[in-house]
Amino acid sequence: MDSKVNTDFWSLAETIYARRAPAIEVAAMEHARRAWLDTLACMVGGAGEPAARAAAQAADTAGAEHRALVLGAASHALDYDDVCMLATCHPSAPVVSALLAGIDRAEGEVTLADLLAAHLVGTETMLRLGAWLGFGHYALGFHATGTLGVVGAAAAYAYLLRLPVAQWRTALSIAASSACGLRANFGTDTKPLHVGFAASAAIRAVGLARAGATASDDALAGFAQAFAGGARLDPPRWDALTPWAVLAPGFEVKRYPSCYLTHRMIAGIQRLRERHPPQAGDAPVAIDLLLPHGSVAPLKYPQPRTGLQAKFSAPYCAAAAWVDGHVGLASFSDAAANRGALLPQMRQVRVAERPGPHEPLETAPVRVTITGPGWIDAILVDWAPGSLQDPVTDEDLLAKWVDCAANGQVAAPAAIATGWLAAGMDQPMGSLLHSLRRAILARSGNAGG
Amino acid sequence: MDSKVNTDFWSLAETIYARRAPAIEVAAMEHARRAWLDTLACMVGGAGEPAARAAAQAADTAGAEHRALVLGAASHALDYDDVCMLATCHPSAPVVSALLAGIDRAEGEVTLADLLAAHLVGTETMLRLGAWLGFGHYALGFHATGTLGVVGAAAAYAYLLRLPVAQWRTALSIAASSACGLRANFGTDTKPLHVGFAASAAIRAVGLARAGATASDDALAGFAQAFAGGARLDPPRWDALTPWAVLAPGFEVKRYPSCYLTHRMIAGIQRLRERHPPQAGDAPVAIDLLLPHGSVAPLKYPQPRTGLQAKFSAPYCAAAAWVDGHVGLASFSDAAANRGALLPQMRQVRVAERPGPHEPLETAPVRVTITGPGWIDAILVDWAPGSLQDPVTDEDLLAKWVDCAANGQVAAPAAIATGWLAAGMDQPMGSLLHSLRRAILARSGNAGG
Repeated sequence: MDSKVNTDFWSLAETIYARRAPAIEVAAMEHARRAWLDTLACMVGGAGEPAARAAAQAADTAGAEHRALVLGAASHALDYDDVCMLATCHPSAPVVSALLAGIDRAEGEVTLADLLAAHLVGTETMLRLGAWLGFGHYALGFHATGTLGVVGAAAAYAYLLRLPVAQWRTALSIAASSACGLRANFGTDTKPLHVGFAASAAIRAVGLARAGATASDDALAGFAQAFAGGARLDPPRWDALTPWAVLAPGFEVKRYPSCYLTHRMIAGIQRLRERHPPQAGDAPVAIDLLLPHGSVAPLKYPQPRTGLQAKFSAPYCAAAAWVDGHVGLASFSDAAANRGALLPQMRQVRVAERPGPHEPLETAPVRVTITGPGWIDAILVDWAPGSLQDPVTDEDLLAKWVDCAANGQVAAPAAIATGWLAAGMDQPMGSLLHSLRRAILARSGNAGG
Repeated sequence: MDSKVNTDFWSLAETIYARRAPAIEVAAMEHARRAWLDTLACMVGGAGEPAARAAAQAADTAGAEHRALVLGAASHALDYDDVCMLATCHPSAPVVSALLAGIDRAEGEVTLADLLAAHLVGTETMLRLGAWLGFGHYALGFHATGTLGVVGAAAAYAYLLRLPVAQWRTALSIAASSACGLRANFGTDTKPLHVGFAASAAIRAVGLARAGATASDDALAGFAQAFAGGARLDPPRWDALTPWAVLAPGFEVKRYPSCYLTHRMIAGIQRLRERHPPQAGDAPVAIDLLLPHGSVAPLKYPQPRTGLQAKFSAPYCAAAAWVDGHVGLASFSDAAANRGALLPQMRQVRVAERPGPHEPLETAPVRVTITGPGWIDAILVDWAPGSLQDPVTDEDLLAKWVDCAANGQVAAPAAIATGWLAAGMDQPMGSLLHSLRRAILARSGNAGG
């Protein structure tokens, strides 16, 4: 790795690290506010899921790293948290999990602005690092949310604790040596556990840097090279004028608790269903899906046996969207995934990928064609629901919060969500977050709170 | 990854997992006995080093995972623990660290045979997995001791706890998703911390598997593919008749606390020095080193500024071997690394790599040529001191133990080492290991013992 590339990376990263609220753009902070609320909703909703419960049970301690493991697993257990295709990952979950788990060590009161700025620094570091690696990283079989997540979460947590810049660099370099997570474990509890691993390792990396552990200044260059499979990388790009990925290309807030790659097909089927409402007793329709090149591999369960696998099943998601209309948390229970009534429709789903070179997964359109009794109709879906181009409303966010609280059986009244959307930037958030954290951890079975 | 390769790997791994003492070859158990003693010596010697102290300080808890972090960092802090070039890694350190940290959860008394069998299962899993990935893994910039180490340590720890084979597979699959460590951090505290990361993640993986977390059965195939940079891998090879890597090719017990790649050059210089003893006031000799292809990259510090960097410096190690004769722990203090008196000799060291294709680092010879006042002499060193072909004696091991105890300032009398070499296979080891562990952790600054 040539040393100029290394220097470029750090100088770009430090530009971000130096930025402090209130100098950060209001629009970026407002996007971060909604990303936090959405991530907390997912965490509340996932608190009782097996991955979070196993995390709580496996550890023999109750410190910040362990809290991060449980909160991280909870945040991603439903696969309902936001995504950003700039780096093919879920940017908010590892960052929010680490900040929430480690907030106790921040000096003084933590305001909403502190949280949001830390979130922006963390997600930005993660996404720009991932953009630098390129899609080859994900294609090799790494779970970018885990691998990039540990670096992003460390960047955010070090920011919250106001580490001097030299220690921040060390924390990131130790975090790079902690990066882990394999796509092969998609569809199992280990996928959400990756977020827990990332958040927990981020807290450890920051702690080690503060304790004086040393690391190499070219660790992130080494990270980029190793995790891109040795590909020759272009210099890192980071436009200092519009730096926040949350503004461009934006994060996509998930409307459905399933793999991001199923979202446009679900939305397309729902729209066609509105045009051609099915009648009870109708025979299955033929559903043809044409996806961007590269988007079929993660959808690895043609015949899911659990709710978790169903999230990564194109036939299941397509059939559920057509038969049920609504696709929500209830669609991905184990019972729902195994209902035989959906099988005839699942068998009528055909999935294909456009041949040719790699396409950007977030902008290459998804084509849905449905052949019903006496009709055929098709639609091209360009933007995922929940993207900047098809955004969620505050009402959507509040409804997601309520759904998630009910799913997780966590006492998280809608008033928290309403208050979060209305809070002033200077409002101290420590006591609210502590009580929410206690409720989430208690639900997972962790007594340490 | 084709499914037959995946099935092959598991069937080979399970053959190893099923083997229990006393059915294991006596010779393998005896090699494991010495590897344990050597690793414990290194851990005792590294207990006061910065990496171990930072690990103890960074954590806010005192459970098994945290103990594993500290013990792992201590075991590798001096870079004095054993190596095996089958997978370009240090096999014993992560395995011993996890077993020692988590021994409390074993049922009943742990005998010497239990420890040694677990060590063999762990190191074997690690090394065969690494051999499957091939040298490309290390060449990409991964620190194989960390990445493979977490899988090996999980295999060993699950064996000690006698997990059912299905849970053992899950533990290994979760461990594969926890694998981390970058070569870019060599020469810093983060290198030994990788061993702590591996041992700690192994304990977590076993705990998660026992708590019912799920993982994918093809996670190790995914691991192999991702961490070999996408290279097409041959089927895994694992000769069931002579399965133990400790017997062939064998582990190399380190005689010098520096990078393995410096060992044959040091041994060669020492032998030439015996033939041509230098006199006080002599001018520097010219030292020409010709190394196997691929062995120069890790030696990244031509002008080391710390003792840690000096371990990865060919000119420093060569000059110290010539000027000092003895190369030991004292050679790698910060003060020793910075002494100006060695500089003139360091400037007379020339390092070259044989051109051409990749050579096996452990068998391709190292050539040392020295030009002194009025003479020139050369030597080819085929085997590293401490290898099976040039083995350490019991006296060497005992002397290493005493040196390490003095360096670490840990109360670890030579009687422990003598007793270890003489212990019967049925001897319970729990109380000895607990008191040794307490002493090591206390030295690192961890109060939790």
